[in-house]
Amino acid sequence: MKEPNVDDLLYWLGLAAVAVTAITGVLDAGRKRMDLVGVIMVGTATALGGGTVRDILLDRPVFWLSDQWYLIAAMATTVLSFFLVRGWHLPPRLFLIPDALGLALFTIVGTQIGLQWHAPWLAASLLGVMTGVVGGVLRDVLCNDVPLVFVHGELYASAAWLGAMALILLQAVGVSSVIAAWCGMALIIGLRLLAMAYGITLPVFRGRT
Amino acid sequence: MKEPNVDDLLYWLGLAAVAVTAITGVLDAGRKRMDLVGVIMVGTATALGGGTVRDILLDRPVFWLSDQWYLIAAMATTVLSFFLVRGWHLPPRLFLIPDALGLALFTIVGTQIGLQWHAPWLAASLLGVMTGVVGGVLRDVLCNDVPLVFVHGELYASAAWLGAMALILLQAVGVSSVIAAWCGMALIIGLRLLAMAYGITLPVFRGRT
Amino acid sequence: MKEPNVDDLLYWLGLAAVAVTAITGVLDAGRKRMDLVGVIMVGTATALGGGTVRDILLDRPVFWLSDQWYLIAAMATTVLSFFLVRGWHLPPRLFLIPDALGLALFTIVGTQIGLQWHAPWLAASLLGVMTGVVGGVLRDVLCNDVPLVFVHGELYASAAWLGAMALILLQAVGVSSVIAAWCGMALIIGLRLLAMAYGITLPVFRGRT
Repeated sequence: MKEPNVDDLLYWLGLAAVAVTAITGVLDAGRKRMDLVGVIMVGTATALGGGTVRDILLDRPVFWLSDQWYLIAAMATTVLSFFLVRGWHLPPRLFLIPDALGLALFTIVGTQIGLQWHAPWLAASLLGVMTGVVGGVLRDVLCNDVPLVFVHGELYASAAWLGAMALILLQAVGVSSVIAAWCGMALIIGLRLLAMAYGITLPVFRGRT
Repeated sequence: MKEPNVDDLLYWLGLAAVAVTAITGVLDAGRKRMDLVGVIMVGTATALGGGTVRDILLDRPVFWLSDQWYLIAAMATTVLSFFLVRGWHLPPRLFLIPDALGLALFTIVGTQIGLQWHAPWLAASLLGVMTGVVGGVLRDVLCNDVPLVFVHGELYASAAWLGAMALILLQAVGVSSVIAAWCGMALIIGLRLLAMAYGITLPVFRGRT
Repeated sequence: MKEPNVDDLLYWLGLAAVAVTAITGVLDAGRKRMDLVGVIMVGTATALGGGTVRDILLDRPVFWLSDQWYLIAAMATTVLSFFLVRGWHLPPRLFLIPDALGLALFTIVGTQIGLQWHAPWLAASLLGVMTGVVGGVLRDVLCNDVPLVFVHGELYASAAWLGAMALILLQAVGVSSVIAAWCGMALIIGLRLLAMAYGITLPVFRGRT
């Protein structure tokens, strides 16, 4: 079974995004000297965590319980990369572009599902952002780190949020949902790549308390 | 849309409690050098986390997806305090009394909702306590700290639990739910303020293992 | 009310497993100088966390909201052990065998419930493993540690997963669910005890990135 209203291309992109996200979990878990089971659990939680939280909040069936292929993609990727990444030297920067694609796809699909399940607009945009970033937050909490997405760095969650808002605004003014989705994804990918290329960041909090 | 059986005063108090709780998240996130997005996410999770967990456990619609104003109050407060708190020097003790009010309100509303959704009495009282304290636990986990509410300190969760039990007992002996709610809230606020004034604490665990 | 399709023996074993698991939470919370409320909350979360996550993912009523005795068993055990463990010197190894029993029981009951709620086979086996280990993960996250089950050590989650798969395979080839359940539990307990006796471990991830 597929995600509703997402065509075949998006379905395969979704599986690919799940796989890419799982690898970022594996790399992080490796730094904490986790064993095979720990790596599988952290990688799978990273890949599926965002969509799971979205589905629980919307009280809709959890996507990897309806369609087991997401789970198989996540677990197979973690097992493969557990054995492969030990042998090869993969520069982390290699994953930044697939990761931006995954962020864009997860965010737009999440926002769209939020709207379909009648979440109000601001809540729907946040559900989209959560679909995109909660997996990474879970990864960092399980690895006992401060979540990377919260600390100072190039635009990430903010790029996702702007893309989600673009999707909602374009649909509100009558643009078809397919075109709005592509525009939203392009905006997220573009902002993220620009932010990495030019080091664009948000202000940091410096409280005196 | 409003929380069921809570009158206008409680609704506005609820929005105010959400805002106050968000600020405690902002102050904590600030200490970890988070950027604007990190601060918004931690502040919002602190403000809405307790009620969200309660609603998921009871399998009832998540309150900020039904009524977006809670979400707007939490996010607007975090954004405002992000920019304001940097400029002003606000002593943390300033927030202790509003925080006690928020704890009392969240706990009593949470317990009442638990009872309405047919949770057994002990479970309902714990759902109330969770509504009051889980936001802060989430804040500390996201900031990679041991949750403040678990470590040695003045009565906090215990004050909330006694207030929740007072609400349940008073209703069981026939007191109207409105009067029972005010008594429960007064008990929580009173215990919390007394505990802070006189340094009342619970015993600490000192295992030999 | 009881868990469906679990007879009286399993029900009492379940309550016992909840109690044993709560104690591991108490011991961990004690090392962080938590007070009585912190210990109760961490102990209860450890005991009930796995089943709670399973029930939320399956969108079925949370087990300790349907049957309060699980909650009472968990809380009573934490309170008792808070006061007793301070006085006695209990070697942690004392808990390893009851803990293996609890892991086996939680995993098999969780897998069985997953199958009954029509989760696909791989997802059902993971729901079983989660029922067995998520409580401990929650305990370690709340105590601000890297979850013990992820780091290098004797087979634990992997033993649980093999037992869950045995249950599913045996049922698929026509073995009655009661016999399959006992075989699965025996496999988990056997693997866990063998792993502890002979120091059997899984490979550790050693990435070069």
